[in-house]
Amino acid sequence: MFKPIKSTKVYEQVIEQIKSMIVDGNLKKGDKLPSERELVEHLQVSRTSIREALRALQIIGLIECRQGEGNYIRNNVENSLFEPLSIMFMLQESTPAEIIEIRKILEVETAALAAQRISNEKLDDIEILIKAFKGSNNEMDNVKIDKKFHYEIAQASRNFLIVNILNAISSLMDSFIKEARKRILVDENNREVLSKQHEDIYEALRARNAKKAAEAMKKHLDFANEYYKDF
Amino acid sequence: MFKPIKSTKVYEQVIEQIKSMIVDGNLKKGDKLPSERELVEHLQVSRTSIREALRALQIIGLIECRQGEGNYIRNNVENSLFEPLSIMFMLQESTPAEIIEIRKILEVETAALAAQRISNEKLDDIEILIKAFKGSNNEMDNVKIDKKFHYEIAQASRNFLIVNILNAISSLMDSFIKEARKRILVDENNREVLSKQHEDIYEALRARNAKKAAEAMKKHLDFANEYYKDF
Repeated sequence: MFKPIKSTKVYEQVIEQIKSMIVDGNLKKGDKLPSERELVEHLQVSRTSIREALRALQIIGLIECRQGEGNYIRNNVENSLFEPLSIMFMLQESTPAEIIEIRKILEVETAALAAQRISNEKLDDIEILIKAFKGSNNEMDNVKIDKKFHYEIAQASRNFLIVNILNAISSLMDSFIKEARKRILVDENNREVLSKQHEDIYEALRARNAKKAAEAMKKHLDFANEYYKDF
Repeated sequence: MFKPIKSTKVYEQVIEQIKSMIVDGNLKKGDKLPSERELVEHLQVSRTSIREALRALQIIGLIECRQGEGNYIRNNVENSLFEPLSIMFMLQESTPAEIIEIRKILEVETAALAAQRISNEKLDDIEILIKAFKGSNNEMDNVKIDKKFHYEIAQASRNFLIVNILNAISSLMDSFIKEARKRILVDENNREVLSKQHEDIYEALRARNAKKAAEAMKKHLDFANEYYKDF
């Protein structure tokens, strides 16, 4: 199924080999990679090339080195897009407005997908978050709860490409829009407004109403985005 | 503006330093990086750490090594998401259906943005592509033209985050859905249908009608996606 990319450099070939093992199902999340020595013997390349390849995979968050234990495929590879996306964002001199725009597009449609696919368990998880948000007047806690609320909805879409891309965009927002999520909560009255918006989204999800879920998410993000405009 | 990520490893610190130079505007697209020797002196770390950091940046497509000349920030950083996205895709055992789903969400809304922001020059470029597609009965040529057509519309949205993410998704489609774009063109009659759909999108863009552009793109992708379903 996978069409290998033409590569000329040795470390690229090492990465291709590791990718092949993943495609063939010989390496899965959480698995230990062969040792550096084994990779040297197996692939007949220098230890330096092996190390470079492993470092690169570490940097994009796909493998982790556990002290004294070796290299493992990460169980959580959800953050592997953030680093390249963030450097690209800076090099292209992109603007925070671009982040806000793509986030809205994806989240609105993701809410519609979630409405069609959400499990009862996930609905319960979201209900708990809504209550926690409503009951807390700690800004920092509410920033975290709000982030989790959006993450759970992305998960409920059951499209992991979307989950990963939204994750990277969400981290980008936290990096490039100063105190983005906190800003809106500085005004005490907003907590009530946001709580109501969260509830509307939840109700639409519970009713498995895709159109209403999208509309409620759109309304929520349009309100929030007003606060992200000035930076 | 940029909040540094907590890093403990030396090569991560090297990457952070290079990122700082980008944030501060001291490194731009196409610029030459300081030599390995200069980086060693400047950052007071080992040559190995410098090399590992540079390799990692090469792998995610952000810098390129020109033989005998040194390392340069790439002019075209648009492909730097594909590698991590592709490995992530495999590790999560995601399905081609997920690719098709996110592509549709993004492209439909991107067409709406493009309708609001497209320049007359870009409209002319797109018109040329439509005529070329119509006039050619070479499958492989038409695959390329179709790809370019979608790329130009993404560009016209003037949101480079969207352009980059769509690019990565498009490459993912080419990698994981065998002969995706060609399949639809095997049936000679489809060329006419697709030509008409392209024209409808173009007309909506030219009329700067966001709603119609989104509808026309949706119709086009719904038609195409029927061919990507069985793999």
